[in-house]
Amino acid sequence: MIKVAVIGCGYWGPNLIRNFVACPETELVWACDLDAVRIEKVLSPYPGVKQTTDMNQLLTDNDVDGVAIATPVHSHYKIAKAALEAGKHVLIEKPLASSVDQGMKIIELAKSKGLQIMCDHTFCYNGAVLKIKEIVDAGTLGEILYFDSVRINLGLFQPDINVVWDLAPHDLSILDFIIGKTPDHLTATGVCHAGNNIENIAYLSLGYSNSFMAHFHLNWLSPVKIRRTIICGSDKMLVWDDLEPAEKIKVYDKGIKVQHEERMQKEQLMVSYRSGDMHAPHVDGTEALSLMVKEFAACIRKNRPSLTDGEAGLRVLRILEATERSIKNDGMTVQISHE
Amino acid sequence: MIKVAVIGCGYWGPNLIRNFVACPETELVWACDLDAVRIEKVLSPYPGVKQTTDMNQLLTDNDVDGVAIATPVHSHYKIAKAALEAGKHVLIEKPLASSVDQGMKIIELAKSKGLQIMCDHTFCYNGAVLKIKEIVDAGTLGEILYFDSVRINLGLFQPDINVVWDLAPHDLSILDFIIGKTPDHLTATGVCHAGNNIENIAYLSLGYSNSFMAHFHLNWLSPVKIRRTIICGSDKMLVWDDLEPAEKIKVYDKGIKVQHEERMQKEQLMVSYRSGDMHAPHVDGTEALSLMVKEFAACIRKNRPSLTDGEAGLRVLRILEATERSIKNDGMTVQISHE
Amino acid sequence: MIKVAVIGCGYWGPNLIRNFVACPETELVWACDLDAVRIEKVLSPYPGVKQTTDMNQLLTDNDVDGVAIATPVHSHYKIAKAALEAGKHVLIEKPLASSVDQGMKIIELAKSKGLQIMCDHTFCYNGAVLKIKEIVDAGTLGEILYFDSVRINLGLFQPDINVVWDLAPHDLSILDFIIGKTPDHLTATGVCHAGNNIENIAYLSLGYSNSFMAHFHLNWLSPVKIRRTIICGSDKMLVWDDLEPAEKIKVYDKGIKVQHEERMQKEQLMVSYRSGDMHAPHVDGTEALSLMVKEFAACIRKNRPSLTDGEAGLRVLRILEATERSIKNDGMTVQISHE
Amino acid sequence: MIKVAVIGCGYWGPNLIRNFVACPETELVWACDLDAVRIEKVLSPYPGVKQTTDMNQLLTDNDVDGVAIATPVHSHYKIAKAALEAGKHVLIEKPLASSVDQGMKIIELAKSKGLQIMCDHTFCYNGAVLKIKEIVDAGTLGEILYFDSVRINLGLFQPDINVVWDLAPHDLSILDFIIGKTPDHLTATGVCHAGNNIENIAYLSLGYSNSFMAHFHLNWLSPVKIRRTIICGSDKMLVWDDLEPAEKIKVYDKGIKVQHEERMQKEQLMVSYRSGDMHAPHVDGTEALSLMVKEFAACIRKNRPSLTDGEAGLRVLRILEATERSIKNDGMTVQISHE
Repeated sequence: MIKVAVIGCGYWGPNLIRNFVACPETELVWACDLDAVRIEKVLSPYPGVKQTTDMNQLLTDNDVDGVAIATPVHSHYKIAKAALEAGKHVLIEKPLASSVDQGMKIIELAKSKGLQIMCDHTFCYNGAVLKIKEIVDAGTLGEILYFDSVRINLGLFQPDINVVWDLAPHDLSILDFIIGKTPDHLTATGVCHAGNNIENIAYLSLGYSNSFMAHFHLNWLSPVKIRRTIICGSDKMLVWDDLEPAEKIKVYDKGIKVQHEERMQKEQLMVSYRSGDMHAPHVDGTEALSLMVKEFAACIRKNRPSLTDGEAGLRVLRILEATERSIKNDGMTVQISHE
Repeated sequence: MIKVAVIGCGYWGPNLIRNFVACPETELVWACDLDAVRIEKVLSPYPGVKQTTDMNQLLTDNDVDGVAIATPVHSHYKIAKAALEAGKHVLIEKPLASSVDQGMKIIELAKSKGLQIMCDHTFCYNGAVLKIKEIVDAGTLGEILYFDSVRINLGLFQPDINVVWDLAPHDLSILDFIIGKTPDHLTATGVCHAGNNIENIAYLSLGYSNSFMAHFHLNWLSPVKIRRTIICGSDKMLVWDDLEPAEKIKVYDKGIKVQHEERMQKEQLMVSYRSGDMHAPHVDGTEALSLMVKEFAACIRKNRPSLTDGEAGLRVLRILEATERSIKNDGMTVQISHE
Repeated sequence: MIKVAVIGCGYWGPNLIRNFVACPETELVWACDLDAVRIEKVLSPYPGVKQTTDMNQLLTDNDVDGVAIATPVHSHYKIAKAALEAGKHVLIEKPLASSVDQGMKIIELAKSKGLQIMCDHTFCYNGAVLKIKEIVDAGTLGEILYFDSVRINLGLFQPDINVVWDLAPHDLSILDFIIGKTPDHLTATGVCHAGNNIENIAYLSLGYSNSFMAHFHLNWLSPVKIRRTIICGSDKMLVWDDLEPAEKIKVYDKGIKVQHEERMQKEQLMVSYRSGDMHAPHVDGTEALSLMVKEFAACIRKNRPSLTDGEAGLRVLRILEATERSIKNDGMTVQISHE
Repeated sequence: MIKVAVIGCGYWGPNLIRNFVACPETELVWACDLDAVRIEKVLSPYPGVKQTTDMNQLLTDNDVDGVAIATPVHSHYKIAKAALEAGKHVLIEKPLASSVDQGMKIIELAKSKGLQIMCDHTFCYNGAVLKIKEIVDAGTLGEILYFDSVRINLGLFQPDINVVWDLAPHDLSILDFIIGKTPDHLTATGVCHAGNNIENIAYLSLGYSNSFMAHFHLNWLSPVKIRRTIICGSDKMLVWDDLEPAEKIKVYDKGIKVQHEERMQKEQLMVSYRSGDMHAPHVDGTEALSLMVKEFAACIRKNRPSLTDGEAGLRVLRILEATERSIKNDGMTVQISHE
């Protein structure tokens, strides 16, 4: 049994706690929050878990193998550093940290200590995303041509981070997980309608060295709720609609065929269209978080990087930081460093 | 009766011909096409209309008041120039010309001759667009916050122009017609998957001097067909789905309310959400083109600019040209001149 | 504070318990179930509520004003009778009883004791149904022409009652609540595919003395989930789709206009069609059950019949019994007694 | 080349004419209508076709192999009889005739003359219906459990026949074509809201000797347009939505599994549910009518019964007649004769 502690009992912490308790491979030993009343309430169904408002108590407990951090983003770095220095493996809620610089330091520290950093990219453990990865990895779609994601709704304006930092980590981690290509540059635009300089609508376009591209529409101020991703391949095309109660993934046997032709003394491309069956594979409904905590246990037990390790979190962070810079400069093209 | 001639009987010309014949305020006198077989076939139901393969024949006919040009874009400038020099009012299929420079010259020439230039922005005469303009002009939506347009489908790859020049004139002319603000700068990205350097997917983001923004997704290579525009206002939000058979326009009584609050010794914005009734106004089903040709007749008769005059066509052209430049430069921010 | 006891802690009982505890006008004093383990578990969050496996304990408690019965249908009559004889007001889960005869006896007994019988027709307290009743009562739809209801899904085969007794009480109580007309006769058909003579699909058609009619499709074995009711009026038409996340009710300004005309020496009816705006009123999301328990408290406090009283339950029961007879006789037309 | 004549140039006739002209296996020789102006107009694009207002002219033309009848229902019998007596094969628009008696006489007459009667059950040549038949015939759905059809819309009130005679032939011919079972009895209900005793809404339920059943909702007065058929099998379930622009047919790998179990000393059925992939096969978009006229040509050339022969038309007619009787008698159960 891997023994874990959870730091932060706000919005996400209780979900981690519930899943660590339910997971047969983990034992939740401690939970910590600065607010003693809140922690008491959150832990009421779990009398066996120790509670504290001082994280040093659990960091100095030799029983604890791993620490899960579910605090506001700005505190991730400080807490992760303390946990690593105390010799604990670390799971961090997305995004990994407030800056690429912080993210790199955490990863280096973990490496030097021989510890694992895992990033809680929950969607990578979602049944639909796992099924899509399986389809893409099997080559069913052919060469992947573009990735288009829309995640819009009315609500949940955050007071401290903009819509990109709030929503894009979901879609960027999914892109990273499924496609695994690193963008060269990006442009992003967005505006704020609440008067606090925190963008509530943003568009992000990722450019690559080849003809692949990815685009994201992120929006807290939409009259309609849409969560739809198109992954277009040269052989087949896939649409994932996360709000569909039944068929979440649709794989279309559609495409084009390009032929070169001599027409009116000019070489021209003739495009023909193909439209076949559509297939909607069954999607496993297991809670993503239950698979995520199991993976945390596995990466500690085997001391191997997790499916969504610190590097994955860092790749997302690099894009978030570059996006911010582009938005604040009228959509300026920003190169993304890979080192 | 306004007497008109149509030049170009390819894809769009026959629609113009049918509507000029049906319109009680216009008489179609001539139709012209370089292909004699094609013009014969197109005119078979209209024995009274004269046909020619030489446009000079109709340009020198003193009976002709106006000329409608429905030829490939690259020939718009030359034909419009000849028609204006022959003293004819001119209707030009969108886009106005191949470049801003050409567009400006046409407009200057028309001005100097005291003639009207009209651009065939057909969608501005569509029942749904007219209803949306009515709603926006009445102030029902409050201040307009953003405009988001998606026009994607599988099919109709053009051999000579990219997806932006093909599809964006629709959405840009609608934006111009309804919102009437001029963008300051833009960034656009796009890629080509057919190997001919002609983009089949593109994203365009328009920036303005205030917090308004507009965004467009244009795509010939999508497994699903979507034609949806969101116009978000401070009081209400509107969604136009052109593929809905019945309720094409939905006006949502939804929005946010922003309050300043002192929290934890910091000034914070508190956002609350409002969700009321939805209203789908009846949309008039009259064919847009029939209203468009009527407007062409009216602008000639009264010698006044049409609702979609040369200036409107030029504003769209400025954005198309800048978009092209941005796409070819990895999404570089491009300023849009207003002079 | 009205003091209540709940008998039956199976599927529905815990919902009643939760709402009686939360309601500021009721105090839950007792809960009872034959299974001591189950009751212990259900009551664990409510330490102040007394528990028993013997309903006589709570029936003899003078503090108790009303008793809610959430046991299997076959036991409703016996328990309700005992509760009434003990001087308690009674709330009974739908359907009221196993037969019209039982239902009539319960109502008579209550009347003779001066006590209230309320039937838990939960849907009559649902926000959408209340809004529809408001619209219909205001005369917005004009004369009501027909009521068409579809409630189908895959799942929840009951072992002891057929799909009519399981699902139709919802729709029949809604019909009774909104339209308030009593049918003259009915025909119903249905079949069983599980080999146990318990129908899993059924169609029910209610006939009235005028040209109004109502129809119901009830189905446990459908690949798609549908919960849609059409209420067609002479002025407007309403569609309620309970599965729509946002616009649950749509009111269409649609209709026909009938004119008599002399054509070819024959009197003929000419029908013209009208199609105007659609309006989707906001629907209150308050939990129906919380309003239902409040109404139970109110009908006890004021000793007046509730909105869904025993008579309403009896009217539903009369239709259920007649439906059963029709189905078992190949759709034979069955008259419905009103006395 | 099979030589054909069309009688009746109202609503449906022009479609037959267009398809007979286009079909490489038929030559349209004559078209006939009582209204000389109408026939002139309809034939204007087909100068080679002879026109007449007197059907005897074409019936006495020895060149004519087959006659297609697209006149009002009440005249089908008389015209078909004349055509058969003149030695012509006959194609009749649905429904076959005004009564079972008439239908039987036509069929007998054809038989005695050695001629073919074909019924224009157009939907049986529709790409979706042909695909469904292929799926059902392949046994993919397992045993067919029920057939549920909804065909509702606002519009097209007929002045002389009710909604059953107008719309049900479509669905009954599809049922006959795909399932091929003959019902034992039926019950039907319907009402008229236009004051002319012609029902505009009707429900029809067909009963069979086993546990299969079929049900139809037919409606001219619905705010929403629905054309959806569910065909539920023991192995898979199929939904056909004719209004879906893309995936018209969806095959769900869903079902139930029934197990007998001993519970609380009673034998009980335990039902478990299965939910797998969904598959939407590509549907051929060829116009149904073009396949129908080809089949007419083939059945004449080979002198063999067509896929939708007189017997098929008669089976539909038997149900229409029985439905009428049931509706006029408050939903009385009516036995259907098979002889």
